[in-house]
Amino acid sequence: MSVVAHLQAELGSIVSVDAADLAASRTDKSGWTAAGTPLAVVRAITVQHVQAVLRIATEYRIPVITRGAGTGLAGGACGSAGTIVLNVAGMSRILEIRPEDELAVVEPGVINQHLNDALAEHGLWFAPDPASKAISTVGGNIATNAGGLLCAKYGVTREAVLALTVVLADGTLLHTGHRTVKGVTGYDLTALLTGSEGTLGVIVEATVRVRAIPIGTAVTVAAVFTDVAAAAGAAAAITAARLGPAVMELIDPVALAIVARYLGPAGSAGLPLASGAFLLVQTDGPGALGEAEQVATVMGSQGGDVRLSTDEESGERLLAIRRAMHPALEQHGTVLIEDVSVPRSRMKEMFEVIAGISARTGVSIPVIAHAGDGNLHPNFVIPIDPLRGTDDPLVPDNVWAAADEMFRAALALGGTLTGEHGVGVLKRRWLADELGEASFDLQRRLKAVFDPLGILNPGTMFER
Amino acid sequence: MSVVAHLQAELGSIVSVDAADLAASRTDKSGWTAAGTPLAVVRAITVQHVQAVLRIATEYRIPVITRGAGTGLAGGACGSAGTIVLNVAGMSRILEIRPEDELAVVEPGVINQHLNDALAEHGLWFAPDPASKAISTVGGNIATNAGGLLCAKYGVTREAVLALTVVLADGTLLHTGHRTVKGVTGYDLTALLTGSEGTLGVIVEATVRVRAIPIGTAVTVAAVFTDVAAAAGAAAAITAARLGPAVMELIDPVALAIVARYLGPAGSAGLPLASGAFLLVQTDGPGALGEAEQVATVMGSQGGDVRLSTDEESGERLLAIRRAMHPALEQHGTVLIEDVSVPRSRMKEMFEVIAGISARTGVSIPVIAHAGDGNLHPNFVIPIDPLRGTDDPLVPDNVWAAADEMFRAALALGGTLTGEHGVGVLKRRWLADELGEASFDLQRRLKAVFDPLGILNPGTMFER
Repeated sequence: MSVVAHLQAELGSIVSVDAADLAASRTDKSGWTAAGTPLAVVRAITVQHVQAVLRIATEYRIPVITRGAGTGLAGGACGSAGTIVLNVAGMSRILEIRPEDELAVVEPGVINQHLNDALAEHGLWFAPDPASKAISTVGGNIATNAGGLLCAKYGVTREAVLALTVVLADGTLLHTGHRTVKGVTGYDLTALLTGSEGTLGVIVEATVRVRAIPIGTAVTVAAVFTDVAAAAGAAAAITAARLGPAVMELIDPVALAIVARYLGPAGSAGLPLASGAFLLVQTDGPGALGEAEQVATVMGSQGGDVRLSTDEESGERLLAIRRAMHPALEQHGTVLIEDVSVPRSRMKEMFEVIAGISARTGVSIPVIAHAGDGNLHPNFVIPIDPLRGTDDPLVPDNVWAAADEMFRAALALGGTLTGEHGVGVLKRRWLADELGEASFDLQRRLKAVFDPLGILNPGTMFER
Repeated sequence: MSVVAHLQAELGSIVSVDAADLAASRTDKSGWTAAGTPLAVVRAITVQHVQAVLRIATEYRIPVITRGAGTGLAGGACGSAGTIVLNVAGMSRILEIRPEDELAVVEPGVINQHLNDALAEHGLWFAPDPASKAISTVGGNIATNAGGLLCAKYGVTREAVLALTVVLADGTLLHTGHRTVKGVTGYDLTALLTGSEGTLGVIVEATVRVRAIPIGTAVTVAAVFTDVAAAAGAAAAITAARLGPAVMELIDPVALAIVARYLGPAGSAGLPLASGAFLLVQTDGPGALGEAEQVATVMGSQGGDVRLSTDEESGERLLAIRRAMHPALEQHGTVLIEDVSVPRSRMKEMFEVIAGISARTGVSIPVIAHAGDGNLHPNFVIPIDPLRGTDDPLVPDNVWAAADEMFRAALALGGTLTGEHGVGVLKRRWLADELGEASFDLQRRLKAVFDPLGILNPGTMFER
């Protein structure tokens, strides 16, 4: 019996070999499409489905690509030739919300925003806040240790995961962690699995930490500076002033000019967006207004043309400038969103490096940064080529060459290849450069403990 | 050549076989003393010393017990027969403080409080706040993933560790993590090593996240309630009111009566400490006073006799009640401090269980809890027996039987054996009960990847 026949015999209609399903599973939001076509897509609804898929995959030695909403930005969950795609998007129930314990228990396919909608009724929220939260799943957030706009103040996803239930490669069920903030019995497998990109096990349940929604109204401050160095300097001055903004976003002049054209004068909130760099800060909590006023003072003293929101509507107009970034870029082509992080003190240098690479290579690289944690998203905009075949590479060689220079520069500044998107397929060729030989080797051996046959997401994170 | 002769030949005077040094290395602050005498104590000052010890230990297949200040509470760093004690307390330099990146780089032997003293000059602090911070090392805090009083608001030690340099069992140097808050390249080995109790590698350098000292003065509120259920109810009501205290400590009536006798009326801050349960809250940040007033209102509505500090001095008087707990207990014997954590909503039940065990077994069990995160410290006070020989067990069988009941009850309530002290030697017999077979087996195999010969802290966490 073939593996597909075996899957169909045991799991019935949740196993699809429909060409459209197979094709849809080959790509994600990075624009990357995997080579070849997977054998089947299995839409798991229960833990037992997941266990059955992994048991059968182990028996036949067939690779399994776990996938949720497909919103990844690193090609890490794309079905390729000869693989089974295990889609857990249908495991989307919220199993428990416990306000008194400030936790929720969810299946992996629940959409981040849906969880937040359900929590809001209890005055609670789930802090991990990737820009994709309206469409990405909590399971995917955990698998990539997703970041977002709020990490400097509220932490990365890892800090919001208390416990996991995971199906291992052979179908065994593993429970990790606790229903408590503290708990140090044994190794922290919860943290090890968070960010492991589907290469160690399949998350089928997560106990996440939730928080009380901050009291009061958030206040937004934004300013335009003459250049990116001044904007980065203002961000550093805000940190140095011991202010703790919830959000601190920086748009460089290349990106801001694109946003300005997209929004037009009506969308500028009265700011001179056509030239210069943009810095947006949001404060929250009971001291939000006082903190925002101090932020505005710091921005002004650093040469910024500053606007402070006076109500929700004026705050929204400032936030809309940040939100317009990706729609504006997408008008110009397919956007490869890169994701380096550097120590905050090196951010200014990283902007200089990127501008230098852009000037030398002729590749336009608009940048947006989560300035509070030194996480830059240099965007490579690849013009849409009507003649491009479906099997042609998405990213032209000259763009990869520019990205390669950029990755190496980030590492040289004490930074990292990826702050929040994951290594996936697209960045695995630089993995060993960042980790070094001892760590790379150790990580391969840890993977083998969880997955001795190498059937879990092969090709993601590590080259096969 | 013997292993000791080899160590002496290569490392000279940092190798001690002095009887007093060997004896001192056999115990920690739990009162536990390991069986037998170690072969030698090596006082490492450099990374190269640590590498040499591990290289030689690997060659001779000799176990290595890594030790810092010896302030552990689980017997996890005690030299036993046939082992080399690797003492890293002398690696105590602060290598970097980077205010602009909100990080510090330290050697493992730096005392937590010394780091905080150095950071204070920059308006910064290291949030991990174990009660032992005046005497415990940052390396030890990391090795146990130490908790403390501030975890509900500021997180456990893991959340403050950005990167580690670790010497592996064979002497290889491993670098993990980043100098950035975000970074998802590869598996999170930094988190895996945090809390691994010296069983995976020897930490020789840590890059830790530091924070701006909260603006304003902390405010303290305390109250006495008629019983522990009322005090636990008030703690739950404070959480339900969406207040986020920095500190929330609960002392049960058994413990409070001991404290009252120790302090006398002069130390009571005007509170009726002789009977009832005590709840202490501290708020901080710009909204500290307003939050403290709301806390006081909630406590009052829950039946508490409440005091709100009006200045630093009156706050200190309230805090002194909490601080008197351990000195008061120590007057009555050797204190075995246990460390279970349960979901906050089960805290009241856990107090009932402990009272029941105490009543049934006749063992007095005064309890103090970090109520904000459901972490209870039931204290077993073992009267000092002048006839006890040095090789007699510290903890009598009836006390272990009571503790066994308590651990099983905590697990049954969805809790954990140890919230912040670690498994060490003293709790390893319950490890598999909590982890379950799949996790226990996996954790053993992960240990073997790091330490194939089993020379790193054998007997700690896992039975040999």
